[in-house]
Amino acid sequence: MINPLYLPELREMLAENDADDLREFCTALHPARTAEFMEGLDPESAWRVLTFADMPQRVEIFSYFEESMQLSILETADRRAIGQLIAHLPPDDRVDLLNKVDPRIVDELFPLIPLKARRDILRLSSYPEGTAGALMTTGFARLDENLSVAAALGEIGRQAERLETIYYVYIVDEGGHLRGLVSARQLVSNLGHPEMKIGELMETELVAVNVTDDQEKVAEKVAHFDLLAIPVVDHEHHLLGIITHDDIIDVMREEATEDALRLSAVDPLEASYLNTHWFTITWKRGIWLIILFFAAMITAYSLRSFEDALQQVSWLVLFIPLVISSGGNSGSQSATLVITAMTSGDVKLRDWARVVKRELITGLCLGAFLGLLGYGIAYLLTPDPFSALVIPVTITLVVICGTLCGSILPMLFRRLGLDPALMSNPFVAGLIDIAGIIIYMQVSMLMLQELRESTGN
Amino acid sequence: MINPLYLPELREMLAENDADDLREFCTALHPARTAEFMEGLDPESAWRVLTFADMPQRVEIFSYFEESMQLSILETADRRAIGQLIAHLPPDDRVDLLNKVDPRIVDELFPLIPLKARRDILRLSSYPEGTAGALMTTGFARLDENLSVAAALGEIGRQAERLETIYYVYIVDEGGHLRGLVSARQLVSNLGHPEMKIGELMETELVAVNVTDDQEKVAEKVAHFDLLAIPVVDHEHHLLGIITHDDIIDVMREEATEDALRLSAVDPLEASYLNTHWFTITWKRGIWLIILFFAAMITAYSLRSFEDALQQVSWLVLFIPLVISSGGNSGSQSATLVITAMTSGDVKLRDWARVVKRELITGLCLGAFLGLLGYGIAYLLTPDPFSALVIPVTITLVVICGTLCGSILPMLFRRLGLDPALMSNPFVAGLIDIAGIIIYMQVSMLMLQELRESTGN
Repeated sequence: MINPLYLPELREMLAENDADDLREFCTALHPARTAEFMEGLDPESAWRVLTFADMPQRVEIFSYFEESMQLSILETADRRAIGQLIAHLPPDDRVDLLNKVDPRIVDELFPLIPLKARRDILRLSSYPEGTAGALMTTGFARLDENLSVAAALGEIGRQAERLETIYYVYIVDEGGHLRGLVSARQLVSNLGHPEMKIGELMETELVAVNVTDDQEKVAEKVAHFDLLAIPVVDHEHHLLGIITHDDIIDVMREEATEDALRLSAVDPLEASYLNTHWFTITWKRGIWLIILFFAAMITAYSLRSFEDALQQVSWLVLFIPLVISSGGNSGSQSATLVITAMTSGDVKLRDWARVVKRELITGLCLGAFLGLLGYGIAYLLTPDPFSALVIPVTITLVVICGTLCGSILPMLFRRLGLDPALMSNPFVAGLIDIAGIIIYMQVSMLMLQELRESTGN
Repeated sequence: MINPLYLPELREMLAENDADDLREFCTALHPARTAEFMEGLDPESAWRVLTFADMPQRVEIFSYFEESMQLSILETADRRAIGQLIAHLPPDDRVDLLNKVDPRIVDELFPLIPLKARRDILRLSSYPEGTAGALMTTGFARLDENLSVAAALGEIGRQAERLETIYYVYIVDEGGHLRGLVSARQLVSNLGHPEMKIGELMETELVAVNVTDDQEKVAEKVAHFDLLAIPVVDHEHHLLGIITHDDIIDVMREEATEDALRLSAVDPLEASYLNTHWFTITWKRGIWLIILFFAAMITAYSLRSFEDALQQVSWLVLFIPLVISSGGNSGSQSATLVITAMTSGDVKLRDWARVVKRELITGLCLGAFLGLLGYGIAYLLTPDPFSALVIPVTITLVVICGTLCGSILPMLFRRLGLDPALMSNPFVAGLIDIAGIIIYMQVSMLMLQELRESTGN
């Protein structure tokens, strides 16, 4: 949100090179607020404002800029100053950011970043996007178990500036293996025994993730165990980094958006909607639309085999959209209910029989009720009350078919190890459309005298 | 997940009343893990195991039980022991739980809860579900600004057991107004100056929420400012409670599920899928299905006005499902893209023109491509290559109509102050179905010689 109140003053301060006021502006508010107020500035002016802040403040405010602003600054501002800024950014964030900067500029910047940070960047950027390794940071406290409580507190106090969290302290052996964890809470609670060794306090039954684990799994663990941060280890249990709660919140948002898009048959975007090229979006939608389109083509073929019946009883055509959409809507409801329940862990695969039973009862009730409504309209649009009965019977069956397909297919996909959110929509929609046409035509042929006669039944 | 390995041993320990081993079992693992291992026990046995743990452990393990297990225990175990347990549960959790217990049992339990906890429960339970007040806890550190750094650390160390977080310390004046905040990070960083007053360290530019704010807004603020906890104040800025990061993660999961359900036209459930009565689910689906059904009924009426044309050119019927589903699928893709982008803040209302332009281009491309595929199938199913052109022209127009409706309607609903996720699906789906039929029939009448002649154009 651009706050227009501050902008003119800010521009004036810049024009007058008013160092005191600019420094004051950078420190007065929460850095997220300061960043918001600066949204209306061009990247060059924003960077000029930041040069008046000292490094920790500069890094904080910069972290809250929108990504497009951050990238413009990295690509245009004085290379040497940017090298310093990068060295002070949180290790996980700078890797994400550098991945998005023009590679030629990265090549120019790289030699200007201090050696230690450069090594750290190379190491972190070797993990693929979407894994624990790509999320983790190396800014955590790593202490020896023989340290005393007082010494440990002193140590984290001294390191506080470079640490992303001081609230968990990790204890490793000489080989770098994760041995245990002491929380700041435990340290503070034991201030009364300053000489106690932290090795005596540490918890050794730790929840950790492997560096190759999927970020969704990491988020689930942090949420389940109510953690502030989770350690990341390799297969030999070497401590490589930690993932903090704020990154977990970002992952959860990302995953929620991805799931919503998948449920609507859009391949998730890598960047935000407006920052993604329209052609990429078209492509990510097109592939699913084509699959859905082929399913819909089959409906055209199925209808063709009933062309004579439709010609003979012309009112049957009127209800084709109604029948198909009843099945499709109830099917997508069931699919979403089952998928969200599986995602949150409420429904497990072993519950399948309960789920199917519930969906059968729900389908029966919804189908019967919608059928009743359908009978009302069919009564008005068909030649006689008995013929009109085709519609409620069809709708009831189609809705039951929808709830069953919608609930069984996601569980089946999960059972096969596929992502239910990804696979369900096209299959559920396509199957129900085709099934709807076939059910409709079969019911009509069974119930309508004139069709029975013409087909010789 | 039930771990069958531990259960027989656990049952044996219970049968033998083996206090040492049971106590050991309760302390050996992370309480979340311990709770998982006990999932296979009946509530009575689970509670018996817990009685061997000391209170902090008992409360922790109990907190990780599934809700149905927690409720059974509260309703069946010894009332006096449950009163004590409730007194030690986190203030926000116990209110949520008691809201779900049979009111007669709450009446019996209430006098057995210590007075202070009882007052706290009454106060917290007065806030409506879904507000900051209902989420907040009163277990936070409230200190005076004249305390020294050393004294403050000592104080939170002593209180640690009853505090939900020790990582933020709140400073209030005598009137109970929120004055500032000191983080444990700041306290630890200033251990070198133990006599410094915390009033000198405190931040006074605080991000806070009002007690009546919606939980979604609270989650957004915490995520935006990367907070561990956020203070909750009333209109006079009295500090009433705090909301911690683990509750925020729960809110975000809840909201993501709700949005997904709304996008599929299901009214969000209050409990989990399997714990909601099938009739409630049927009702929450039925109301939206009925609205969608009325929209579909309009398609039946629109088709009726084209009945002669359909009778005359019978192959037109074959493509009705294809035309409708092309519009519906591309429309729901656009709606979900725009809704998720608005939810995450990537798209604001002022971006409407950019969004519409993008969707127009995307619709044109997708429509043209699907139209091409449609021409292939129409070529096979229609009598002559020129008639078959009706299908690509229709599909292109319908897909463009879908992308425009799907993107404009959610922004319109947001503009009108309505929840776009809630309103969009039925309207988008209904409008596109009807528009699809009308576009299809109009294109046919314009392009097909035999229809032009019969309608006298």
